[in-house]
Amino acid sequence: MTGIKRLAQHLNVSIGTVSRALNGKPDVSEDTRKRVLEAAAAIGYVPNQAGRALRKGATGVVGFMMQTGSEITGEGDVFFMSVFDGVQAVFARHQLDLVALLCSSEEDPDAYLQRVVARGFADALMISATKREDHRIDFLAGRNIPFVALGRSQTDAGHPWLDLDFEGMANVGVSRLVAKGHRRIGVFAPLDDINLGFVFVDAYRQVLERHGIAFDPDLVFRVFPNERGGHQVAHAIAAMPADKRPTGFVLTNEVMSVGLYNGLYQVGLVPGKNFALIGRDSPQAHFLVPRLTCFRLSLRDLGTALAEALLATMPAYAHHYPLGIVRKVMPLELVEGQSDMPAPP
Amino acid sequence: MTGIKRLAQHLNVSIGTVSRALNGKPDVSEDTRKRVLEAAAAIGYVPNQAGRALRKGATGVVGFMMQTGSEITGEGDVFFMSVFDGVQAVFARHQLDLVALLCSSEEDPDAYLQRVVARGFADALMISATKREDHRIDFLAGRNIPFVALGRSQTDAGHPWLDLDFEGMANVGVSRLVAKGHRRIGVFAPLDDINLGFVFVDAYRQVLERHGIAFDPDLVFRVFPNERGGHQVAHAIAAMPADKRPTGFVLTNEVMSVGLYNGLYQVGLVPGKNFALIGRDSPQAHFLVPRLTCFRLSLRDLGTALAEALLATMPAYAHHYPLGIVRKVMPLELVEGQSDMPAPP
Repeated sequence: MTGIKRLAQHLNVSIGTVSRALNGKPDVSEDTRKRVLEAAAAIGYVPNQAGRALRKGATGVVGFMMQTGSEITGEGDVFFMSVFDGVQAVFARHQLDLVALLCSSEEDPDAYLQRVVARGFADALMISATKREDHRIDFLAGRNIPFVALGRSQTDAGHPWLDLDFEGMANVGVSRLVAKGHRRIGVFAPLDDINLGFVFVDAYRQVLERHGIAFDPDLVFRVFPNERGGHQVAHAIAAMPADKRPTGFVLTNEVMSVGLYNGLYQVGLVPGKNFALIGRDSPQAHFLVPRLTCFRLSLRDLGTALAEALLATMPAYAHHYPLGIVRKVMPLELVEGQSDMPAPP
Repeated sequence: MTGIKRLAQHLNVSIGTVSRALNGKPDVSEDTRKRVLEAAAAIGYVPNQAGRALRKGATGVVGFMMQTGSEITGEGDVFFMSVFDGVQAVFARHQLDLVALLCSSEEDPDAYLQRVVARGFADALMISATKREDHRIDFLAGRNIPFVALGRSQTDAGHPWLDLDFEGMANVGVSRLVAKGHRRIGVFAPLDDINLGFVFVDAYRQVLERHGIAFDPDLVFRVFPNERGGHQVAHAIAAMPADKRPTGFVLTNEVMSVGLYNGLYQVGLVPGKNFALIGRDSPQAHFLVPRLTCFRLSLRDLGTALAEALLATMPAYAHHYPLGIVRKVMPLELVEGQSDMPAPP
């Protein structure tokens, strides 16, 4: 007798019910699913997923591709884990498992993704760190693999995406500092061709123009997006002639503020006293003195929205999430702190 | 013509070479592997991994099971990402991909692991957060699934494991504070049945005994292992009668020190001035004032060692890593800071 037949007899349910429960289909009650999984564990029944994937094209797994490597996550992660919390809250409703696909920064993301797809163990993918032109989007769309992108791109395959409102951060942050009398306002931009850098710098230029302030490329500080990068920005500012230095700064990255604070203190620029800083909220930023004026959004909500946008495109789940193709910029809230004082007269 | 045959003709190599390259076997040169993968991508050849797994029992994927959830990773992760760096450095040699299996803290880890195994997409597993008695160990050993544990357990299946030297931290930390005149030394322990809590508290009792100091259960502070937990410890200390309070503390957790510092300042206990603290190194701890006296180890090296211990048990890779069954406690180095002053006379 096959394992599944034995399991069905043992539980006095149909083979179809056992199969649907094991495959995480939504039309099985939680109670039944629990009974089936417990009984399967008790009798040591391990359905061969490889076989199941061949038959049904469904693995019950969704992969979230994120970049790793000492320049990026060597100091830890204060973003993705919270996003994953939200994704998992949605996936748990459907017995879907989230796995994090860790693409080393030393590896080409396109080749990595192709290999992941070749391995064939996920039903759908979430991609992040989207580039200005991102081949992964065309690759996935061309193979009809359901996916959602965290981050916009100029590559458009009619796919769903969510992104942070970098334009809003540029607009609110720069305008706030201008209103406080600042004219030389520095910003951070990444070193690589990740799309958010282009979006933010474009928006920064536009808001400066609206305020009648000339764009100065020396005020765009390009470093690795980590704490060390924050330090480097502070020391780069200190190395500028006094009349060329920014008097304020808008930082859109969530891991750099601790390093930037520390570096600013080292060079005698004290946030909220003689240097105005607006940053991104993070668990560590809560401990900064003086309190950081910062942009905040719920990363858990972002994760929830990402998961729902993905499921909305998957035939097995779309009826639960009649959202169409989600393309949404998530707004951030400005939380007032004490780090952005008016410019010196 | 099948895809693989076409690919072999196109590259003028044997089908076996293409197959070995696509399957990440070590006996193919990096150059050939690159050519094969590029050509496969160019002609859009995506081997069906589900089919391959059935035929060969090899997916090229290793899963690392870690706990997530807002109590654990809601404030980010400063441990696993760095360990993953080391794991990936080893796996890259063999074209193995690491995926992080995110087990929500709301889910039973045993049931989660059984589901992961049922999904069948990984050749081998790394498990973490091992419990005093850990059913996952027997489950994996019983199914001959190669695995390595990060963390010891009383469940012993003759499996490989690595762990941090919690005994060493208890011994060095407590003895150092005793030598500085402290007699009431607090420690942190987790709330759940994770094994490291037992190992550390046992070692703490033994070292106290060696120094002729009675064990006081009120000096073992049990909170969630996050920044909030650090705060809670400080406030719990402040709520104790002055003569019952610890004058020093040994903290083995890497994410709590920022919260503990902040909480101690709030209650008027200043590290290095009127409260002696020895903690764990972390990226955030570098920014604490005064500088934290702390235990440090290379998380990347830990990841490298974990990966090699796992591959040493897998027939396809064991000849590269003739290590036998690795069971190793990784020592931590004490880095002197200014947070652990002598006890008041």
